[in-house]
Amino acid sequence: MNKYVFGVDIGGTTVKIGFFSADGTLHEKWEIPTRTENGGEQVLPDVAASIKEAMARHGVAAEQVEGIGIAVPGPVDAENTVYKCVNLGWGVFNVKERMNELLPEIPRVAAGNDANVAALGELWQGGGQGCRSAVMITLGTGVGGGVVLDGQIVAGHNGGAGEIGHMTVNPAETVACTCGKYGCLEQYASARGIVHMAKGMLADCDTPSALRDMADFTSKEICELAAAGDAMAVAIMERFGEYLGRVMSFISCTVDPDVYIIGGGMSRAGRIVTDTVLRYYRKYAFHVSTGTGVAIAKLGNDAGIYGSAKMILNA
Amino acid sequence: MNKYVFGVDIGGTTVKIGFFSADGTLHEKWEIPTRTENGGEQVLPDVAASIKEAMARHGVAAEQVEGIGIAVPGPVDAENTVYKCVNLGWGVFNVKERMNELLPEIPRVAAGNDANVAALGELWQGGGQGCRSAVMITLGTGVGGGVVLDGQIVAGHNGGAGEIGHMTVNPAETVACTCGKYGCLEQYASARGIVHMAKGMLADCDTPSALRDMADFTSKEICELAAAGDAMAVAIMERFGEYLGRVMSFISCTVDPDVYIIGGGMSRAGRIVTDTVLRYYRKYAFHVSTGTGVAIAKLGNDAGIYGSAKMILNA
Repeated sequence: MNKYVFGVDIGGTTVKIGFFSADGTLHEKWEIPTRTENGGEQVLPDVAASIKEAMARHGVAAEQVEGIGIAVPGPVDAENTVYKCVNLGWGVFNVKERMNELLPEIPRVAAGNDANVAALGELWQGGGQGCRSAVMITLGTGVGGGVVLDGQIVAGHNGGAGEIGHMTVNPAETVACTCGKYGCLEQYASARGIVHMAKGMLADCDTPSALRDMADFTSKEICELAAAGDAMAVAIMERFGEYLGRVMSFISCTVDPDVYIIGGGMSRAGRIVTDTVLRYYRKYAFHVSTGTGVAIAKLGNDAGIYGSAKMILNA
Repeated sequence: MNKYVFGVDIGGTTVKIGFFSADGTLHEKWEIPTRTENGGEQVLPDVAASIKEAMARHGVAAEQVEGIGIAVPGPVDAENTVYKCVNLGWGVFNVKERMNELLPEIPRVAAGNDANVAALGELWQGGGQGCRSAVMITLGTGVGGGVVLDGQIVAGHNGGAGEIGHMTVNPAETVACTCGKYGCLEQYASARGIVHMAKGMLADCDTPSALRDMADFTSKEICELAAAGDAMAVAIMERFGEYLGRVMSFISCTVDPDVYIIGGGMSRAGRIVTDTVLRYYRKYAFHVSTGTGVAIAKLGNDAGIYGSAKMILNA
């Protein structure tokens, strides 16, 4: 194992890059803009150039670099082929082969889906430290998921492992999800989804609520009002918890992880989220798995660069 | 790798044992009764004695045997600890340690849950041949599940991986499952469950059906009538397919396997089962996974001995 690795996390707006030593210490992290024009053809060349600059800056030769791990916002299979990243304008191609062309002197490249990679990062140095397996659930603009078993990312045959935001939790839903299906978890448990759900619930009843006095509100405000005892906000959180807790029980009936790690913006609300979700999880989980823990993610926006680095250190 | 392995599949009534060479050829298979009295304390000694007899019968010395794989009807963790097998009277103990005491001359022992082990067997020499990952769904008296990723059984932190029969598909159910929860898949998709569901559906409507003229009926008869176009039997199969197909979509959103392998008594009905299930699976699956195949299990009651042998050959 060479001395250093780079962890790269490609998002729709910025690319985060971390420079690590092989013992897992992060020495420097920085960001570059994601240039999505022309089908995102400049994204990987920009990453390669930025890594070359960093190597010069740190006085590191190519022989000292073990590899580059890359998290991308879309499905990636076990052979590092990415299947469309809408946010980057990317189609289908092999990320590893492209990076090998750009930086032939670096021995190893591995690519993974950003949510899966973040799960690996959190298991390594975040909320899942000390565990062997974890499922990370990111409650952000969407609902992302990452599955890591025995320290290895589960990518899935079609790169679809961990797409827990698209489990159909409400087949009766009449509004379509961004994926085209109806009643996906993401429609109720993402920051946007819970607000949409809340507006529907408010329109369907007369229960008094501080939410009715607000011109608009966020998922954070729903969580705060629920924690303060607003009956309507509590009812909204209960429905959120029912859907997410049940999905977690499905995941446990499939892979039975050591721990669930909750990340993304909504995880900042803390116990109002984890307590509600855990109550429903325990109701629906098969008896052997009712004790599975729920942790809050610790690495925030750095989970992707940590996980990317770990992909290289794992291999 | 030594020349031979034994694959053992412990059921509530009989123990099946297979004698394999390391290339995967099954040379002999036989059964012994499962003696469940006194907390099933005689089960493993009986297995050990039968294996010793087989070694003598085939003129095989202990040095030629690589190990013994054992499938048990209950949760087993990655360290070979079994957590209660109700059908055997077993509590919590380490199967590997107990077998090592009984047959210290055999180098390796591995234990796994019978459904997981059967999945491994089917992936190796059955319906999943040529695939890297599979989820097996056994539609028998209950609904069992087994998850094999990259050729390795996923046991789960609490031995609960693959317990797909206990996913809550109908939270509104008022009748309890054998596990104590309400609305588990097993209550609608097992041989017993589909008959119970059918009786409820018949009582709730006036739709004419040949099923109304029968004093009692089996899951096989429901499948046959549905294939023949009986409207009520078709409606029953649709509800069965809706629940099972949706559960498969949940599994794909978690681990995204290459193939689903359907086994157990109901799998003998063939395409009326697989076609119905696939239609709902494709409705609910995330788009990247809609092409996942569904195969019928091929090894029947031998899947357990094949998978048990493969656990040893894998390690």
